[in-house]
Amino acid sequence: MSSLRSGRAARLRDQAAVRSRLAPVLRKLKPIEVVDANAIDRIHNASCAILEDVGIEFRDPIALEHWRRVGAAVAGERVRIDRTLLMELVAKAPSEFQVKGRGANTGFTMGGDTTVFCPMKGAPFTRDLDGKRRSTTESDVINFARLTQACPSFHMAGGFTCEPMDIAVPHRHLVMMRHHLVETDLPLFGIGTSRERAEDCLAMARIAMGHVMDSAVTIWMHASGNSPLVWDQAMLDGARVFADAGQAVLCSPFVLAAANTPADVAATIAQVNAEALAAIAYMQLYRPGTPTVYGQYTVSISMRSGAPMAGTPEVALITSVIGQLARKYRLPWRSSANHASSKSFDAQSGFEGATTMMTGINAGANLMLHAGGWDEGGLVICYGKFIADDEQNQLMARYARGISFERFDEALQAVRRIGPGGHYLGDSFTLDHFREAFAMPEAMDFSSYEQWSSAGSEDMAARCRRKARSLLEDHAATAINPNVRDELDDYVARRKTEIDPNIR
Amino acid sequence: MSSLRSGRAARLRDQAAVRSRLAPVLRKLKPIEVVDANAIDRIHNASCAILEDVGIEFRDPIALEHWRRVGAAVAGERVRIDRTLLMELVAKAPSEFQVKGRGANTGFTMGGDTTVFCPMKGAPFTRDLDGKRRSTTESDVINFARLTQACPSFHMAGGFTCEPMDIAVPHRHLVMMRHHLVETDLPLFGIGTSRERAEDCLAMARIAMGHVMDSAVTIWMHASGNSPLVWDQAMLDGARVFADAGQAVLCSPFVLAAANTPADVAATIAQVNAEALAAIAYMQLYRPGTPTVYGQYTVSISMRSGAPMAGTPEVALITSVIGQLARKYRLPWRSSANHASSKSFDAQSGFEGATTMMTGINAGANLMLHAGGWDEGGLVICYGKFIADDEQNQLMARYARGISFERFDEALQAVRRIGPGGHYLGDSFTLDHFREAFAMPEAMDFSSYEQWSSAGSEDMAARCRRKARSLLEDHAATAINPNVRDELDDYVARRKTEIDPNIR
Repeated sequence: MSSLRSGRAARLRDQAAVRSRLAPVLRKLKPIEVVDANAIDRIHNASCAILEDVGIEFRDPIALEHWRRVGAAVAGERVRIDRTLLMELVAKAPSEFQVKGRGANTGFTMGGDTTVFCPMKGAPFTRDLDGKRRSTTESDVINFARLTQACPSFHMAGGFTCEPMDIAVPHRHLVMMRHHLVETDLPLFGIGTSRERAEDCLAMARIAMGHVMDSAVTIWMHASGNSPLVWDQAMLDGARVFADAGQAVLCSPFVLAAANTPADVAATIAQVNAEALAAIAYMQLYRPGTPTVYGQYTVSISMRSGAPMAGTPEVALITSVIGQLARKYRLPWRSSANHASSKSFDAQSGFEGATTMMTGINAGANLMLHAGGWDEGGLVICYGKFIADDEQNQLMARYARGISFERFDEALQAVRRIGPGGHYLGDSFTLDHFREAFAMPEAMDFSSYEQWSSAGSEDMAARCRRKARSLLEDHAATAINPNVRDELDDYVARRKTEIDPNIR
Repeated sequence: MSSLRSGRAARLRDQAAVRSRLAPVLRKLKPIEVVDANAIDRIHNASCAILEDVGIEFRDPIALEHWRRVGAAVAGERVRIDRTLLMELVAKAPSEFQVKGRGANTGFTMGGDTTVFCPMKGAPFTRDLDGKRRSTTESDVINFARLTQACPSFHMAGGFTCEPMDIAVPHRHLVMMRHHLVETDLPLFGIGTSRERAEDCLAMARIAMGHVMDSAVTIWMHASGNSPLVWDQAMLDGARVFADAGQAVLCSPFVLAAANTPADVAATIAQVNAEALAAIAYMQLYRPGTPTVYGQYTVSISMRSGAPMAGTPEVALITSVIGQLARKYRLPWRSSANHASSKSFDAQSGFEGATTMMTGINAGANLMLHAGGWDEGGLVICYGKFIADDEQNQLMARYARGISFERFDEALQAVRRIGPGGHYLGDSFTLDHFREAFAMPEAMDFSSYEQWSSAGSEDMAARCRRKARSLLEDHAATAINPNVRDELDDYVARRKTEIDPNIR
């Protein structure tokens, strides 16, 4: 019993060590440029021409009225925006803003050379702790909120990481918010798919961390656009609620390249850019200074199945150019990390995940979204992959910090000490510095075949599921005032009685 | 029977289509720079200081005599090389050279903006067509030579892709060369671990493609250095034989960072750079103008198991800086692709593989080595991974070619045709161009979960093993003159009687 207890105590100490959160990543690498300045100008001009000549639809009477007031040409739901007006509005968007959660050890600057990580969002299916695929349930929402808190790499919580299919649609946002606000202390995404839901999310956020909301952005709206060239009322309603509360809006066109855009990489970028800029401009028109983030979720589609494809060369190129554009406009921007389309957590997940990850990091993304759990094109959240992704995030953070020359001269003295034919393992410099000089991953296994076999021949998926299980078993509740938790629970209970679960 | 025949005919047609070889990749992406020019100068100066003050060992009386003749300070086996002499010699290395195999559809420029792919080398173990790990045999050597030929992405053959453990060590080079020369028509690596073996390889290459060797590089020596700061006689003996024949020498320090170098990324690079430059300088001293390639195989080591770790952030940074250095010296250089350390072909293999791959491509490597089959830190060649890697190579080739603006204006017309809220699937531009606009991978599966399940729920490893099996079943012999093949077989038979299989 005492040994069991001390075992658990040791695990908790380990967990506490693990839980020291990764600092927001200050990138030292010059962002990659896959096209030259001339090409960026061509794309920018094409985006402007699209908004001037073709226009974009705001399927929302309020927004149309706002556009009319500033002199944009509105015909039906079609808005044609002159490039001078467009860029004047975009220029009102802050190039950086401060984000904070309720936890003391949370918060980051959004924009500039900072990169942060956030788990995936919206999965209706879960690849569970046994590797089986099934509908997501409320208990998964709780588990993934706990894992978000327990895994060191996440600076934001997904908020709607996965969809509890056992909860009526009109009640889901309440459940997802409650669990994320209680189980994590991070800034997070709210749900803004209608005015009412957005108001619920903000009311609950105010209960949990109203004191933080007054001075910083704590909760974000993820506004997805309907490509090609449509922003709809539900999203805009929600976005206005978040903007009114001084919170952030991610303006993220959702694009299946070649289905929603021309079958051409450069023209796809021009269209996506037009869509993102129009939404950012609108948010600045609605409430100047609103913290907005340049988003885009672009995947190519399989002409065989219609399914989204993540780790493809064209997606990597598109993402990289979006980064160049965002810097031109001095806007914080999001990319995706660890995207994958595989039906099991296998080599394909790894290839796709690392390709999108390297792309986003090299492109200098500020927010690495979907950086935990994403597989099957976003239909699935995978317990194993969530753990693996968390480690990949930490490794990429080390990469993005670049090369330090702080100990260079001292290290070169070691070369003089050891000379040809020796080895450095016993050298004082090695003993002092190898721990921090080179990453030592754990989810990735670097033992010998013999060690690995005798430890049970677990592949990465099995190892990571075991780690997820252990983190959940040893889960320590985040510090939250019980009165606050009760108030949240009361709010959810009350709203559940007020909102008919059978309407949509 | 007739349907079986026609099935096989169809497969062969498919295979012929697949077998149209990927063109050497002309990179359009500006290589990534992870440190600035000042940092590159610091590293260069540190490398020079190491060679001037610490020196490097050439454990080889012939090389020592050569160094003495040009005025380097030789003490015992230690050679101290002044930076003026060093850079004078390095400047004699061609910045580009022409490479050609015996096949009509082979050949590339080594250097500049060209990237080519070559499979892995040296695996004593094989993860076989059933996914089981076992010793490599001669039949694996044959199979992987055939797969190298059948997979479109490989511009070079590994030559010693895997080690036939069922063949006596002193006879292995004969067997590996014979099978690669017969089963592939590509330029390839020879084996130069002794003067005698190098001479055998060159004699056999001359039988198979002597006419090509007169005007181009067809066979390369892979000279591995012993870090820290040692080049040994066996490698130098072999390298001189290849240089005498006008063939290429890859000068590649083999580095376990923190074991063979200081526990510091920048100092590791400085030492590796000193090692590579010293070998290139020596080859130019021995025979000015010898085609040399700046190599390095650097991995960090696990302090838990001592095993090499590939997909780590430090390896990515080191590789990127080596690229910056190679460009400074105007030398063609190699990186590694698809490196992995996993004990099964799982997500870890994918994460590590894609991380090293993206790194090498973004860093602008000319030769992507180990780009097929590598797992378990190089101890294993994996049939499944070989197929997956081949597809990754093709995808990365598309990425490296960057974004074309050739159809940009035409594609933007489609935006005007479709406008907001439509879709592009039926548009004439889409129908004309989607096939080439977006990659459509096959080893990566993008079907729906339902399609995937009903097709047998194969993970990537299983799918790729199946593809490998099918390619081998449908294998079509490369065109080789039967007399040439017989002459090669006679050479091997004769040398097997001359070389005692029991000596090493």
